Amino acid sequence: MPQFRAPIRDFEFILNEVLNVQQYKEKGLKGFEDVDDNLISALLDQGAKLCEEVLFPLNQSGDEQGVSFDKGNVTLPDGFKEAYKTYIESGWTSFTCDPAYGGQGLPEVLNMPIIEMICSANLSFGMTPGLTHGAYNAIYMHGSDEIKQRYLPKMVDGTWSGVMCLTEPQCGTDLGLITTKATPNDDGSYNIDGSKIFISSGEQDATENIIHLVLAKLPDAPDGVKGISLFVVPKMWVNEDGSIGDANGVSCGSIEHKMGIHASPTCVMNYEGAKGYLVGQKHKGLRAMFTMMNEARLYVGIQGLGLAEIAYQNALEYAKERLQGRDLHGPKYPQKKADPLIVHPDIRRMLLIMKSFCEGARMLALQTALKLDVEKRSEDEQEIEQADHFVQLITPILKAYFTDMGHEVANLGMQIYGGHGYIREYGMEQYARDARIAQIYEGANGIQALDLVGRKLPKDTGKYLRSFFHPATEFVAEHRENSDMAEFTKGLHTALKNAQQASLWVAANGMGDPNEAAAASVDYLKLMAIAVMAYMWAQMALAAQKGIKENSSDSEFYEAKLDTARFFMKKVVPTQYGLLATIVEGAKPVMAARL
Amino acid sequence: MPQFRAPIRDFEFILNEVLNVQQYKEKGLKGFEDVDDNLISALLDQGAKLCEEVLFPLNQSGDEQGVSFDKGNVTLPDGFKEAYKTYIESGWTSFTCDPAYGGQGLPEVLNMPIIEMICSANLSFGMTPGLTHGAYNAIYMHGSDEIKQRYLPKMVDGTWSGVMCLTEPQCGTDLGLITTKATPNDDGSYNIDGSKIFISSGEQDATENIIHLVLAKLPDAPDGVKGISLFVVPKMWVNEDGSIGDANGVSCGSIEHKMGIHASPTCVMNYEGAKGYLVGQKHKGLRAMFTMMNEARLYVGIQGLGLAEIAYQNALEYAKERLQGRDLHGPKYPQKKADPLIVHPDIRRMLLIMKSFCEGARMLALQTALKLDVEKRSEDEQEIEQADHFVQLITPILKAYFTDMGHEVANLGMQIYGGHGYIREYGMEQYARDARIAQIYEGANGIQALDLVGRKLPKDTGKYLRSFFHPATEFVAEHRENSDMAEFTKGLHTALKNAQQASLWVAANGMGDPNEAAAASVDYLKLMAIAVMAYMWAQMALAAQKGIKENSSDSEFYEAKLDTARFFMKKVVPTQYGLLATIVEGAKPVMAARL
Repeated sequence: MPQFRAPIRDFEFILNEVLNVQQYKEKGLKGFEDVDDNLISALLDQGAKLCEEVLFPLNQSGDEQGVSFDKGNVTLPDGFKEAYKTYIESGWTSFTCDPAYGGQGLPEVLNMPIIEMICSANLSFGMTPGLTHGAYNAIYMHGSDEIKQRYLPKMVDGTWSGVMCLTEPQCGTDLGLITTKATPNDDGSYNIDGSKIFISSGEQDATENIIHLVLAKLPDAPDGVKGISLFVVPKMWVNEDGSIGDANGVSCGSIEHKMGIHASPTCVMNYEGAKGYLVGQKHKGLRAMFTMMNEARLYVGIQGLGLAEIAYQNALEYAKERLQGRDLHGPKYPQKKADPLIVHPDIRRMLLIMKSFCEGARMLALQTALKLDVEKRSEDEQEIEQADHFVQLITPILKAYFTDMGHEVANLGMQIYGGHGYIREYGMEQYARDARIAQIYEGANGIQALDLVGRKLPKDTGKYLRSFFHPATEFVAEHRENSDMAEFTKGLHTALKNAQQASLWVAANGMGDPNEAAAASVDYLKLMAIAVMAYMWAQMALAAQKGIKENSSDSEFYEAKLDTARFFMKKVVPTQYGLLATIVEGAKPVMAARL
Repeated sequence: MPQFRAPIRDFEFILNEVLNVQQYKEKGLKGFEDVDDNLISALLDQGAKLCEEVLFPLNQSGDEQGVSFDKGNVTLPDGFKEAYKTYIESGWTSFTCDPAYGGQGLPEVLNMPIIEMICSANLSFGMTPGLTHGAYNAIYMHGSDEIKQRYLPKMVDGTWSGVMCLTEPQCGTDLGLITTKATPNDDGSYNIDGSKIFISSGEQDATENIIHLVLAKLPDAPDGVKGISLFVVPKMWVNEDGSIGDANGVSCGSIEHKMGIHASPTCVMNYEGAKGYLVGQKHKGLRAMFTMMNEARLYVGIQGLGLAEIAYQNALEYAKERLQGRDLHGPKYPQKKADPLIVHPDIRRMLLIMKSFCEGARMLALQTALKLDVEKRSEDEQEIEQADHFVQLITPILKAYFTDMGHEVANLGMQIYGGHGYIREYGMEQYARDARIAQIYEGANGIQALDLVGRKLPKDTGKYLRSFFHPATEFVAEHRENSDMAEFTKGLHTALKNAQQASLWVAANGMGDPNEAAAASVDYLKLMAIAVMAYMWAQMALAAQKGIKENSSDSEFYEAKLDTARFFMKKVVPTQYGLLATIVEGAKPVMAARL
């Protein structure tokens, strides 16, 4: 049976020792008023308790039982409804939300660890609240005051959920092709007619109401993506006083049978004269949707991290306990019949790929969340802009790299378990199945790569890129003379050099022919991700060096951190050379080939 | 619904135009007496018919229904028993077997396409006959005449199956740890007592009897792998006259619930006083088992190829039909609402990774099978030795690379399907689930890599390596002045140079410290595999150039072959640089890290 232990020490290391988030309390950033070591520690402990004791025990049973569908009704697996009740009663849904609607107004950077832990403990469970938060954001940013007043409080307290309804049978990535119709009524509302597919949590039995955010086309809509509008369409009508009225022409036609996330219903949703209200401006629905989508992309990235973490934890335990074969230098435990797997170099190599990803990705997730806090809450224009540029650049990288690595790490975990990894009982294969979807939904990873090379890289001759390259390059300059840091700044320097070379190649060649940028995009994204991760590892190495000097009682933790940083610099950064060599061969072999 | 069309043209291209297998008829190689274009074509057509019409239609239903277990009895999914009957009646089980036991004595190189097609059409189905063939080989090579006479004819005609019983709960890779006991009886037989796990096809309802090849320890056995003996233990006792007697203390305790290959039973097998006979010498069971295992490793590699092929075929069709987005150079089909996926560079890149793997791997599989034929059937000692060296070197590479790529290609197929790839209905996710086991069983891929660096690379200062590097280097020398071939010999030259550099590094550093070789092993295997594949592609490019000149009516086929060769040289070979750069960083970051 797999186990889950929340990586509290690692969260605290990053929050307190690397990012020093407490400094934002002194700087007076909104939401950070109460942020100190005690608050951080209390939140992490409560989140860990929820995940370890309530959500994780339902993960395997939820996968086995799955969701069921009967005449339009969807039933979650046993225990999920009760767990959701516990979850909302503990206030987790309102964590970062605006106090004006009942939220706690806490920072994203403190919410991020909770999200990661939920993704480790029970990915399927996390879908409903995760999507609700996305829907909250879209309404909060683009809805009228009336809509906000009517819907947000119950979404904030979790009584109602929210879902995103984009995909139709004929359109996934290409939203210009949607055919769902919105017909204006005299009272300012609209009637929505059409069908949506792949709607996660589109129907479920844990909340009193489900607020659908639906992309549809008005009668006078221009063709393509410039003619899409966003509507809020509740499953049960909501009266002006906020009470629940009649059913609203929203029904679930069926649920999909999927490779994984069996405890999360993926619904075909039918809208037949369903009444709704416009969110934001006519024909500008895509913009509103992107508000929701950008944060959702970060959230999906964290799914990759969460699953990587649980796979790593269990594979590490297994490698320490399972006796098989002997150390190549001679028996390490001669009194036992065999040595543990962890003596074997390739097992160690796999574990270190897993570990260096999880810890580096955690750092990037938290650094990005902190930038989101600054972007949303600072009053310093320049600081806001810098934060925005960083988030813009990192979003596609984080989404694609974290989910690709989530799948890879889950598969490495299975590999370490050998045949037991393929058996359901041991839990590892579920992580691989669950991880697979994250590479596809919320913009398939190829779309993320196109976003990176098509929008983010060329933006204002590289201003988004500079939000990463400048501080990372400054870090190298600042610490390269520090002998403790030389091996790490050297690795980072190499990673940055490769990333700059690739960026220049893609920018220069993509300008002449967009196919050049597109054909390079996936390799480029990965190469950039490794550079970003190297920056994360260099920052953590610096903090670990400090930790060793100031907190010798915990030196094992810091030394292990340095070991993992070394592994990343020596054994992951060099993989960039293969990516770079492939990129510079250009698009011709791809575009000219007969298929 | 997925489709399967046997890649007949590609098989014929390799057999007739690249390998020219007909030449072995002229050379008088045993089994090639009747090998001509007509025989090849007839065999491929019959195999294709079986796979397309009988096996493939049961693939999805078999996955959905799975095998069932009730009180020791295992029932295959609907239709499998009947399909097996059709299969054996058509004589496929006897294809390469010795005519002395009812076999057809046909070459391995002609059997290989059938095996690949079966793996594409229905991987689970192929397990029972595949394992039977492995058991046939072990008995054929190591059994006494009496055992051969008693068991082989019915295994050859498929009435009985054969299975390999190695793994126990406490030992997978490390067979030295087995505890199953063999106690000698006065009549020359042995009583076998113990439990085995993960026994594929250990119990099923398609054959009249199941012949278990069981590793066990005799009372006087030395510790470790040098004390293992191999026994033939029939499920139902076989009388001296070949008739079936009583049940033989062999029972199935349960079956595993797995990620994939749901139509293949994975059994816990219990042996309680089960009577059996020794195969080969006492305490030398591992050697006999390896006879079986080496060919089984090639077979498992083909599983990766087969699944890659079916994933590629369907992803290609989907990419041609699914309309989504526009060509970056402007609409390609302005009259349609969107262009097909295949206009997008990254979709093309993924398809070409898939295609270049499938076609290159097919060539390697057939070239290896032909070497097996030479090794087993030639009378020229030097030719036999050369063939043996090549097979020895290629076996771990083929097993690990093909299965890693099989999984990767199946996942790329899912990715091209987007959300539909994650849904069971479309069939793509089954290929990924089924492909995953092949990386684990028959020696996990990390074990293949250790075999490569530990046994194959250092063997007699590189004599196995030379069986590949010599002809490949000669190929470059011979064709580099041919202007049509320059781009391909250049790619191959690069691939060989990198592989030689890596080989030297691993050999030199592994000599001083085995951990250095082991830590590099997985990256080294992949790097070598790319070099071997590049050699395959160079040979196919040469044959395609010839085809263009001699057979202009089929020029599209040959031009596409050259396109794919170009893609491999330009976009796959360069990934070696990342592997090489990682290898030369050495084992220290792996071995020194605290975990």
